[in-house]
Amino acid sequence: MTDVVALLRAELGERVDTSASALEAARSDKSGHAAAGLPLAVVNAGSVADVQAVMRIATATRTPVVPRGAGTGLAGGANTGGGEISLSLRGMDRILEVRPDDLLAVVEPGILNADLNAQLAPHGVWWAPDPASRAISTVGGNIATGAGGLLCAKYGVVRDAVLGVDLVLADGRLLHLGHRSVKGVTGLDLTSLVIGSEGTLGVVVGATLKLRRAVEGERVTLTALFDGVRAAAVASAAVTASGVQPAIMELMDATSLAAAHRLLGLSAPAPGVAQLTVQTDGPVAADEARAIADVLRAAGGTVAVARDAAEGEQLLAVRRAMHPAMETLGTTLIEDVSVPRSALPDMFDEIARIEERFGLVIPAVAHAGDGNLHPNFVFEGPEVPAVVWEAAEDLFRAALRLGGTLTGEHGIGVLKRRWLADELGDDQWALQRQIARVFDPLGILNPGKVFAD
Amino acid sequence: MTDVVALLRAELGERVDTSASALEAARSDKSGHAAAGLPLAVVNAGSVADVQAVMRIATATRTPVVPRGAGTGLAGGANTGGGEISLSLRGMDRILEVRPDDLLAVVEPGILNADLNAQLAPHGVWWAPDPASRAISTVGGNIATGAGGLLCAKYGVVRDAVLGVDLVLADGRLLHLGHRSVKGVTGLDLTSLVIGSEGTLGVVVGATLKLRRAVEGERVTLTALFDGVRAAAVASAAVTASGVQPAIMELMDATSLAAAHRLLGLSAPAPGVAQLTVQTDGPVAADEARAIADVLRAAGGTVAVARDAAEGEQLLAVRRAMHPAMETLGTTLIEDVSVPRSALPDMFDEIARIEERFGLVIPAVAHAGDGNLHPNFVFEGPEVPAVVWEAAEDLFRAALRLGGTLTGEHGIGVLKRRWLADELGDDQWALQRQIARVFDPLGILNPGKVFAD
Repeated sequence: MTDVVALLRAELGERVDTSASALEAARSDKSGHAAAGLPLAVVNAGSVADVQAVMRIATATRTPVVPRGAGTGLAGGANTGGGEISLSLRGMDRILEVRPDDLLAVVEPGILNADLNAQLAPHGVWWAPDPASRAISTVGGNIATGAGGLLCAKYGVVRDAVLGVDLVLADGRLLHLGHRSVKGVTGLDLTSLVIGSEGTLGVVVGATLKLRRAVEGERVTLTALFDGVRAAAVASAAVTASGVQPAIMELMDATSLAAAHRLLGLSAPAPGVAQLTVQTDGPVAADEARAIADVLRAAGGTVAVARDAAEGEQLLAVRRAMHPAMETLGTTLIEDVSVPRSALPDMFDEIARIEERFGLVIPAVAHAGDGNLHPNFVFEGPEVPAVVWEAAEDLFRAALRLGGTLTGEHGIGVLKRRWLADELGDDQWALQRQIARVFDPLGILNPGKVFAD
Repeated sequence: MTDVVALLRAELGERVDTSASALEAARSDKSGHAAAGLPLAVVNAGSVADVQAVMRIATATRTPVVPRGAGTGLAGGANTGGGEISLSLRGMDRILEVRPDDLLAVVEPGILNADLNAQLAPHGVWWAPDPASRAISTVGGNIATGAGGLLCAKYGVVRDAVLGVDLVLADGRLLHLGHRSVKGVTGLDLTSLVIGSEGTLGVVVGATLKLRRAVEGERVTLTALFDGVRAAAVASAAVTASGVQPAIMELMDATSLAAAHRLLGLSAPAPGVAQLTVQTDGPVAADEARAIADVLRAAGGTVAVARDAAEGEQLLAVRRAMHPAMETLGTTLIEDVSVPRSALPDMFDEIARIEERFGLVIPAVAHAGDGNLHPNFVFEGPEVPAVVWEAAEDLFRAALRLGGTLTGEHGIGVLKRRWLADELGDDQWALQRQIARVFDPLGILNPGKVFAD
């Protein structure tokens, strides 16, 4: 057998890390799940040429490669196991160009989302995708998963915010996909195909991002309390149907709200109470907030409007405490179904049914403005119990029945691959697999992810 | 040889049209160019099952099929020649579902863009893509070409406005691509891959469209006259850089403006004068119009603000008269390069250089808000003279040098296929061709379009 690590070291020297801690860290992501076995090596790429060198060696030796950003994924997509190379892009974190006049930036993939936006702010522009992980996740990872966030209904998802990507293929060739202009329909839209492909088509080594102007004016934040999650979901659907577009509209069910209050040392909410947190922005933010408050009151909500931006941030901090709050309860499988917005109340009914059927408590939050739910299955120990998988399967099928999808923003990774064909159908599943093979004929790019073997 | 027409008639009866007029009409589109020879037949599909039947016969007999909407394309993408079947979707024009609460509609492909929006208006929603052909082009054709329009900088292109498509493959199988939710990252984004694929991947038989709420408030329209097209282009770039987002910002050079005035019976503009036409909308439209007027005056423009909506429409009618005005001058090859917005002045310099080099007059308009130019090569007779192709090639290369693209919104079709590899590079060209072959292994879907043989 060829010594792959020796070949890597010969070309990449100290960029090749085989320390026990590095190998162990590369096995898992923020899903809490880990690949079987230890990777051969972690390569910390510093340049496009480094990535090309790794892929050429991988092709020559038929070695699987798992691209990795900051390892904050929630579906196991970057988990690297026995016999595989973990290819880290985290060190490639430069902004190569910012053009406020053309509303674009060219970046390396390893820059953190929040760092990018901090550096864009003085130019009066921003990149809209805002996954909850924005402080710790990379732009390349956001692209690989097709990430969403809180602002998507108003400001779009990653697919709406990328003009082009530079992609290293499995054999080491570099392609420049997409364009720098607002419009461009030259050939097939491979940029969109790469967004959300979770490392199965190539390694994203650069991106041309579509920026937005900073939003002018004061933001207005308000909360509304409801007797139970269904009433809150009905109210959020009423806001969407009213035609007023909030920037953020987040829903927390009673269990989630209580856990977040506990974590933050706030007084406990009344039992069974669910909360909507809404933020408006732009030149008519105050008018919009008033209109939304009216809709929420008419739907039975108890509304409180933040006095200023600081208090608004405190209100949103409760929502942002959700993930750490869940971690205090045990190991968590965070699900990610998405449904048409009008189906949100029905989806919460389905969650209540599943809780009862399986004897589980499933704390759930939702990006209510866009119909994306995160039900949390909490359990003890490192392994997902069989009953949780059964309940999750029930959840997926319910989402599909309601016209929804398995995953709104986290991706398929390893955790959902067994249900992929349920949503796509066998014909489309096979077609997608064939397309991936055009990019990666030997099947060395993130094998076993997305498409179950 | 199998009698393909007899097979079609046996299954599809009177939907098969072999009249001389139908065959002749299917040879060409609005580009003025025509395929060699006459098609075997035109099939007017009335249902998904009809389309599937055509594709099964086509696969069994290895007969090329050219999908067609209203035939308003400008790149020859729907032109059908000898030995080919023209598959018309124009008769499949129903709206199957409108959901204002979920901001989506499900439609058949043959509905005209303007008819769709007329039927959506009572629901308080609209579909944003607005190609200049919107009164005569189909939604399916808009999807096949990845169409743009006037409103794209503010409201996006087709790619931003489609959630899913139903696609019949070359062998007649039906796939449902995409989703109904705002977010969705289950598997590869084949919906985006189909948008702009110009009939090479399958036949679009249905679409789930992403709608927008009707924009509230009065629109404000203004024009600004400049000494020459470069000054107008510099001014438009200054508007974009100022951060105020117009809904529409159209540029007409002196030759275009004069031709449009002549066609409409308006008094002739002063010689050499170019015009920007700007429209703002939304709750702060008046403020935005004032800010833009200031930028345009500072850039040397003579600004006139429309007194009301009716006068605003009259101002825009001058821009909308461009295509018929060009037709009065001779046969037209309408080009479609797109560049980053800051490069618009340089691109007009390139057009002036090309005019001089080749001794041509090239009237040009631009969607200045998004950097998409339509230089018009006008000539006598049905054939594009060699000198025009040489000048067009010079134009394409100039656009690529400036970071732009061959085609912003018209597509490649037959007219630009010989330059496709120049922009994509040979590796990406070959990869795209292989991907198309996954969908269409026999190469019977719109052969010779996009990818030159």
